[in-house]
Amino acid sequence: MYVDMPAAQLPDYRSSQVEPDDFDSFWDETIAAARAAASAVVLEPVDSPLATIDVFDVTFSGFDGQPVKAWLRVPKGVTGPLSAVVHYVGYGGGRGHHLENLLWASAGFAHFQMDTRGQGSGWSMGATPDPVGTGPQYPGVMTRGIDSRESYYYRRLFTDAVRAIDTVRELAFIDPARVSVFGQSQGGGIALAVAGLVPDLAAIAPCVPFLCDFPRATVITDAYPYKEIRDFLAVHRDKTEAVAAVLPYFDGVNFARRAQAPALFSASQMDATCPPSTIYGAYNLYAGEKSMSLWQYNGHEGGGIVDEQRAIAFFRTIDGNR
Amino acid sequence: MYVDMPAAQLPDYRSSQVEPDDFDSFWDETIAAARAAASAVVLEPVDSPLATIDVFDVTFSGFDGQPVKAWLRVPKGVTGPLSAVVHYVGYGGGRGHHLENLLWASAGFAHFQMDTRGQGSGWSMGATPDPVGTGPQYPGVMTRGIDSRESYYYRRLFTDAVRAIDTVRELAFIDPARVSVFGQSQGGGIALAVAGLVPDLAAIAPCVPFLCDFPRATVITDAYPYKEIRDFLAVHRDKTEAVAAVLPYFDGVNFARRAQAPALFSASQMDATCPPSTIYGAYNLYAGEKSMSLWQYNGHEGGGIVDEQRAIAFFRTIDGNR
Amino acid sequence: MYVDMPAAQLPDYRSSQVEPDDFDSFWDETIAAARAAASAVVLEPVDSPLATIDVFDVTFSGFDGQPVKAWLRVPKGVTGPLSAVVHYVGYGGGRGHHLENLLWASAGFAHFQMDTRGQGSGWSMGATPDPVGTGPQYPGVMTRGIDSRESYYYRRLFTDAVRAIDTVRELAFIDPARVSVFGQSQGGGIALAVAGLVPDLAAIAPCVPFLCDFPRATVITDAYPYKEIRDFLAVHRDKTEAVAAVLPYFDGVNFARRAQAPALFSASQMDATCPPSTIYGAYNLYAGEKSMSLWQYNGHEGGGIVDEQRAIAFFRTIDGNR
Amino acid sequence: MYVDMPAAQLPDYRSSQVEPDDFDSFWDETIAAARAAASAVVLEPVDSPLATIDVFDVTFSGFDGQPVKAWLRVPKGVTGPLSAVVHYVGYGGGRGHHLENLLWASAGFAHFQMDTRGQGSGWSMGATPDPVGTGPQYPGVMTRGIDSRESYYYRRLFTDAVRAIDTVRELAFIDPARVSVFGQSQGGGIALAVAGLVPDLAAIAPCVPFLCDFPRATVITDAYPYKEIRDFLAVHRDKTEAVAAVLPYFDGVNFARRAQAPALFSASQMDATCPPSTIYGAYNLYAGEKSMSLWQYNGHEGGGIVDEQRAIAFFRTIDGNR
Amino acid sequence: MYVDMPAAQLPDYRSSQVEPDDFDSFWDETIAAARAAASAVVLEPVDSPLATIDVFDVTFSGFDGQPVKAWLRVPKGVTGPLSAVVHYVGYGGGRGHHLENLLWASAGFAHFQMDTRGQGSGWSMGATPDPVGTGPQYPGVMTRGIDSRESYYYRRLFTDAVRAIDTVRELAFIDPARVSVFGQSQGGGIALAVAGLVPDLAAIAPCVPFLCDFPRATVITDAYPYKEIRDFLAVHRDKTEAVAAVLPYFDGVNFARRAQAPALFSASQMDATCPPSTIYGAYNLYAGEKSMSLWQYNGHEGGGIVDEQRAIAFFRTIDGNR
Amino acid sequence: MYVDMPAAQLPDYRSSQVEPDDFDSFWDETIAAARAAASAVVLEPVDSPLATIDVFDVTFSGFDGQPVKAWLRVPKGVTGPLSAVVHYVGYGGGRGHHLENLLWASAGFAHFQMDTRGQGSGWSMGATPDPVGTGPQYPGVMTRGIDSRESYYYRRLFTDAVRAIDTVRELAFIDPARVSVFGQSQGGGIALAVAGLVPDLAAIAPCVPFLCDFPRATVITDAYPYKEIRDFLAVHRDKTEAVAAVLPYFDGVNFARRAQAPALFSASQMDATCPPSTIYGAYNLYAGEKSMSLWQYNGHEGGGIVDEQRAIAFFRTIDGNR
Repeated sequence: MYVDMPAAQLPDYRSSQVEPDDFDSFWDETIAAARAAASAVVLEPVDSPLATIDVFDVTFSGFDGQPVKAWLRVPKGVTGPLSAVVHYVGYGGGRGHHLENLLWASAGFAHFQMDTRGQGSGWSMGATPDPVGTGPQYPGVMTRGIDSRESYYYRRLFTDAVRAIDTVRELAFIDPARVSVFGQSQGGGIALAVAGLVPDLAAIAPCVPFLCDFPRATVITDAYPYKEIRDFLAVHRDKTEAVAAVLPYFDGVNFARRAQAPALFSASQMDATCPPSTIYGAYNLYAGEKSMSLWQYNGHEGGGIVDEQRAIAFFRTIDGNR
Repeated sequence: MYVDMPAAQLPDYRSSQVEPDDFDSFWDETIAAARAAASAVVLEPVDSPLATIDVFDVTFSGFDGQPVKAWLRVPKGVTGPLSAVVHYVGYGGGRGHHLENLLWASAGFAHFQMDTRGQGSGWSMGATPDPVGTGPQYPGVMTRGIDSRESYYYRRLFTDAVRAIDTVRELAFIDPARVSVFGQSQGGGIALAVAGLVPDLAAIAPCVPFLCDFPRATVITDAYPYKEIRDFLAVHRDKTEAVAAVLPYFDGVNFARRAQAPALFSASQMDATCPPSTIYGAYNLYAGEKSMSLWQYNGHEGGGIVDEQRAIAFFRTIDGNR
Repeated sequence: MYVDMPAAQLPDYRSSQVEPDDFDSFWDETIAAARAAASAVVLEPVDSPLATIDVFDVTFSGFDGQPVKAWLRVPKGVTGPLSAVVHYVGYGGGRGHHLENLLWASAGFAHFQMDTRGQGSGWSMGATPDPVGTGPQYPGVMTRGIDSRESYYYRRLFTDAVRAIDTVRELAFIDPARVSVFGQSQGGGIALAVAGLVPDLAAIAPCVPFLCDFPRATVITDAYPYKEIRDFLAVHRDKTEAVAAVLPYFDGVNFARRAQAPALFSASQMDATCPPSTIYGAYNLYAGEKSMSLWQYNGHEGGGIVDEQRAIAFFRTIDGNR
Repeated sequence: MYVDMPAAQLPDYRSSQVEPDDFDSFWDETIAAARAAASAVVLEPVDSPLATIDVFDVTFSGFDGQPVKAWLRVPKGVTGPLSAVVHYVGYGGGRGHHLENLLWASAGFAHFQMDTRGQGSGWSMGATPDPVGTGPQYPGVMTRGIDSRESYYYRRLFTDAVRAIDTVRELAFIDPARVSVFGQSQGGGIALAVAGLVPDLAAIAPCVPFLCDFPRATVITDAYPYKEIRDFLAVHRDKTEAVAAVLPYFDGVNFARRAQAPALFSASQMDATCPPSTIYGAYNLYAGEKSMSLWQYNGHEGGGIVDEQRAIAFFRTIDGNR
Repeated sequence: MYVDMPAAQLPDYRSSQVEPDDFDSFWDETIAAARAAASAVVLEPVDSPLATIDVFDVTFSGFDGQPVKAWLRVPKGVTGPLSAVVHYVGYGGGRGHHLENLLWASAGFAHFQMDTRGQGSGWSMGATPDPVGTGPQYPGVMTRGIDSRESYYYRRLFTDAVRAIDTVRELAFIDPARVSVFGQSQGGGIALAVAGLVPDLAAIAPCVPFLCDFPRATVITDAYPYKEIRDFLAVHRDKTEAVAAVLPYFDGVNFARRAQAPALFSASQMDATCPPSTIYGAYNLYAGEKSMSLWQYNGHEGGGIVDEQRAIAFFRTIDGNR
Repeated sequence: MYVDMPAAQLPDYRSSQVEPDDFDSFWDETIAAARAAASAVVLEPVDSPLATIDVFDVTFSGFDGQPVKAWLRVPKGVTGPLSAVVHYVGYGGGRGHHLENLLWASAGFAHFQMDTRGQGSGWSMGATPDPVGTGPQYPGVMTRGIDSRESYYYRRLFTDAVRAIDTVRELAFIDPARVSVFGQSQGGGIALAVAGLVPDLAAIAPCVPFLCDFPRATVITDAYPYKEIRDFLAVHRDKTEAVAAVLPYFDGVNFARRAQAPALFSASQMDATCPPSTIYGAYNLYAGEKSMSLWQYNGHEGGGIVDEQRAIAFFRTIDGNR
């Protein structure tokens, strides 16, 4: 069933999320510090049974110079310069197994799939620690370190994501002008964040993105993971305002205002996990070129493989040279 | 939690399933009729964005000559003769999207993924009709046509599966001696059936196979799809014996008695959908070389991608020439 | 809780369902073909322990001349001409056991309870096959053959239902002018279809009817069986328009526009299975005399036995001669 | 799935329920007091639309002379002496609507369907109050008045049931030697109680009977209503022994020891509400002639209409003269 | 998620509940009768391990003079006159264990925690019988005796609650001018009732009060216990009007119109058990001074201990002398 | 229902958990390091409305000298030396609100309720961070840092708990010989750990203790939080052995072998969260004096307030001087 406002109202919806004055300086300083702490990327070839793709086990420097894992998959024997797709994954998962997610490299892209620090134990495997503690938190990462914008989990994760772009662009066989970003759910939310923080991406495809429009998302659905915030505030009644002051720094709505890359969004009218209005909250303010696939009969799976198929075509059109 | 007998008892468990006298003649006649009704396979190249794999939309003749769809994925530019993997899919799904399931072709196999007649609407898309009616049935296919062995749904599906092997072996670029079979859940059950019906397969890898040991499977779990049979018999109380006479012709236990191909099984101690004892019911009688991956902390997902990774290595060892 | 719009808005609600130009010709041809293929009805007396009712096991010709079962129950020793009630049953069920559903014959009617092809395995037993295959479908019958109006399951079932009326009217001891129709849920949806397809019924009583106003029904509830369509389209994303073109031929809204028989509807404000607005979608366009029992605190059970009691009184008043 | 011990062990199972020394005197005094307080039965004809059955709205004297309702349905125009069936109903329900439950009268019996005091609001309607208060109790009637055998709800209900037999036997058109008893679930438990308290019943048919073998029933299932007792004792930890001393007076096991009427039981191997071993706890000690229908694939619905069909045949054979 | 109308609309919401003409006379007579039947309160010291609090096991006269239990907890060694808090408890619970609920006495109040007749078996223990019978009812107390305002369960419980105030005021060491009332959920509903029936309470703190605005509460939520009424009327379809005529005598909306004591309410925007609009239905008509804590991210737990902390401060401010 | 082996078998059950050779040195070094890093405890009086109890907001040095919060509640005006109870809390919770948990101080003990690092957001509030990162983990703390015994969350939490004992004993008004320990569920598991690590506690009362007998606990129940480990290993299939090597250092079974303090345990036969056999796994090896309350009809709530009442009596008897 439809879980949100009628489709006709979505284009006119405006999020009530506030835009902090120091949003840009907060992120500028955060990213500058990460870059300053970075060391050289390490690529180790993986001994895989694949005949058509080379896989590399990547370790790069993320937030505060902390090591972050990724898989880099490239079509075998291709010398570049390649178009690249940086891929962020959904909540609870990690970069998975190196034999999974072969689509992007099979389609000819250098596929850089970033691991998700401290997650990677729910529906796919991860290998990256989150070497930073937390205040009292509800299980999951939605309230990890939520006591301040400095300590909030997503400050670290979004910074890792920006650093993943940096890392890919520095690889010899990648064309830095043709780096696009793909992600579903949390991965889509990260894609939006990166689009707001990195000015010259080729394109982004945030599918059913999470982490958008917190003021609405935390009150119109009972689905996790947004509900982690609700559960936390149900116990920490005195932190409602403090949390409301932290979340604007991490809301896709505010990243969307700053983004310039052409974007292909998707949303689903039956998605209780990331209700469509919360995605339109970001989409309607997105400052770059944009289009939306609104799926009528889907839930949080959105367009699934069709979203990916469309993203491949979209990135190719943008890249212009395939 | 463990859903079945202790692991130590599994190797000694023997299914109570009976073996009908005319099991072989029933299947011989069924398959002979299908072969007699067959027409030539049709391969249409798919216009895909893949750079490393060629995909073909296959239509071949299944049960009673009825058209069955498949995807054939082969590493681009390879001329053969290739090792092939015939892949059957799980309950409710179909052959899916042509951009999905790229592992096997990426690993260098000709990957023939058979569609599942009349299913393909639950978790992955299918395109093959089941052009045969049914008596009264419980929703799903477990009781479709269950009134007789002739009309039972799985007679048609298993025959399609045998015909898929026939079809692959006839392809010019495939080495017919190096055709292996892979399947998970229902796909694993089909793999077992094929192993009992086709004498000279290279190898099979039935992962967490379904459709084994019906006398036990229908009474020790409340998980679907086995429960479809229970739900049917709860209403059709007068058909308990008739159904018990039909199912032995379709039970992995009886196919296992006849199978000769080397086999790599998997099962999970926390799998309520295909409880491990039902799989050992077939495994313990399996007449060929065999080994088992018993997963301690997994449910019906079994070893997942690791089961696939092991199957790749197993098939390669068997093929001996990669 | 109320699951739909406020009661005060229901009378003004108008369905968005379209009316195909060739709706009438589609059905005229379908029914004419069925009548042309019909053979003579067979009535076999059932050896029952009933002292007050004679039960006959009926086989009549339905869609395409295919055999359909029914129970005919008549008060013992009554010679007619009798008023008759043709009774269609709810989703998943069948004609049941001959000792069930004694109300209508006990009330003096010839009670013709039609079986439901291919169902009859969920909450009551059936005996009628659906000897026609299907494309890929979601479990159940909502998407069986949904690829075209010709192949859709409900084309066959509604034709069976029309043929049930034909059959009853041809029985010697029935007064063909006093044939009414009763059904709950799916049975109510069939009753509406028959009312739109057979011009001179005495009366109909569609209780909490299913199969009305698909454009709304498939998006405002998560309850099955409407959700089968949603689940099918969630996988077959490319078939949304095709399905939307098939369903108008089977929507109670379009049958209601054509119906002339006096009608007694019921609906429930707490019915998530058949939300009241979907029923009002048909009711508000119903072209014959009509009245509605709107139950405030009921779910899909509606008025239950009270709906039946009212239908008996209603049919008697219409018949005018008891 | 099977919810209890293997079928082969059921015939050897012995309940651990104790037999109180004063069981007989407790019940003798209770019933004698009820009989002493009784006033004349009142039968009011119901204005029903039924053509084959006459229905009477009965008020008779139950426990402590309190008024209890029933429906009496008799085949129209039959003058007797009739065989009678006294019918007790399941947990939460009442005597229902007078148009329901037409089977027994249609089969030629005088059908006396007793209402259930204070229940009749869950799945069928009742009209009989329980004009006695209660100590603290868990919702439902399982712990109503459970503080003592004198105040326990089932003391009143079982006495009503005995008084129903008395009442039927006093009706002019009933043959008092041909009074049988039927009940499902709670109704089956009441049937057992009556069989232990009334010495000369023609026959009983307790189907999937409830209220048997409390020491086992309260610990091997999480299904309600047995779980009401568990929930009560989870809060009233200090009453475990007191409750254990009250329940033996109301346990079908102890009534079974005393019963002499021929009995047709049923039980289901997949019934979590009334697990089969608890029924065998009573069945194995049943002192009269007995037989059992053990349903393999059913839950608490047991044999449903087939149990009823068998009971009709059984009662007729016993009566010998129909 | 928010379960009700937006917070901004709550202050303007007006309940549709009617106000019966004889509301006051009904209650005046009921309470006068209870007072006339009262006997002297009994206080028995409890042998507890507490060092700072004396606990008394209280038996006082409630409805119709029936004995009602309570705990009285007072700070050890305090001689008074004390401020008192009369405390009513939530649905299904009772006065609990004497070692529970030490907050109020620890804060210096005489804490009189009334038991709840016939409940006290769900989440906390009770010891008070409800020595009055009932008509057919749904499990729980919401429909116990609902056939008439005279027999309805809450007539007795609210009268007990008024008598608890009487009892406390008569105690030598209590200052009768400083008796306040606290309750959560059902306890809050009782607090409102008492505020409407006892003219000179010091203050009340109804937290997330239940039993308010029945016309809306019974149709906008599926949560129990309001749903008990819905379930009852789903079966007793003919009693909808009768029940609608009984409930106004017990609705917090009508008590609120009469209340004069300063009041501190709470409600939660995510409370499906007692939706906020139903509480505002009473709050908006509350005739005394009032304030509301509306919790944004809480469910039925409301402000929990913070509601209690605020109530302590509120009562102290009112009492003016601590 | 009973969720585990029969009660009669529990005393003979022996856990299969191994005892690492370096168990003692691991813990000795861990605790020595924490003590070396400790700074002075800070007690700040809380401005509470309590009249009978003084509450202090405590900050003490836990693992690695990290600050840990606690509440200290003492009967007002008592000068000591007091008996003390150190209280650890259940999974997901924290020290809660200072107005909660007044029992122990009301009973005359100095009540030191330790906060739980990084939790305190589920059912009660906490204020203590866990300033240490983690590898990939399943939501919750069961797999936080589980990659090694050094990094595992419970190494830090158990060390905090030992330091809480140290802290209490250093308080001037506490008699260090009369320090007992109380905890339910996770709190009970911590109590066992402390009993194994601190040699001279007065007594412990572990109620329905968690964190016992991991080899069995992780496979015989589907209840969280044990299931977090199962879920983690279902994804991290390659870590099964590594995790099995870490957990023995944190298993109540191994702490029990070392404990000397007299102990009062509780367990429940219907507790799926902490099944009774897992508790007997520790209890049966407990090296000190011991007794067990085995609750027959309870789940994870165990004896609740009665367990607390018994613990009060037990501690007093041990202390001997109250």
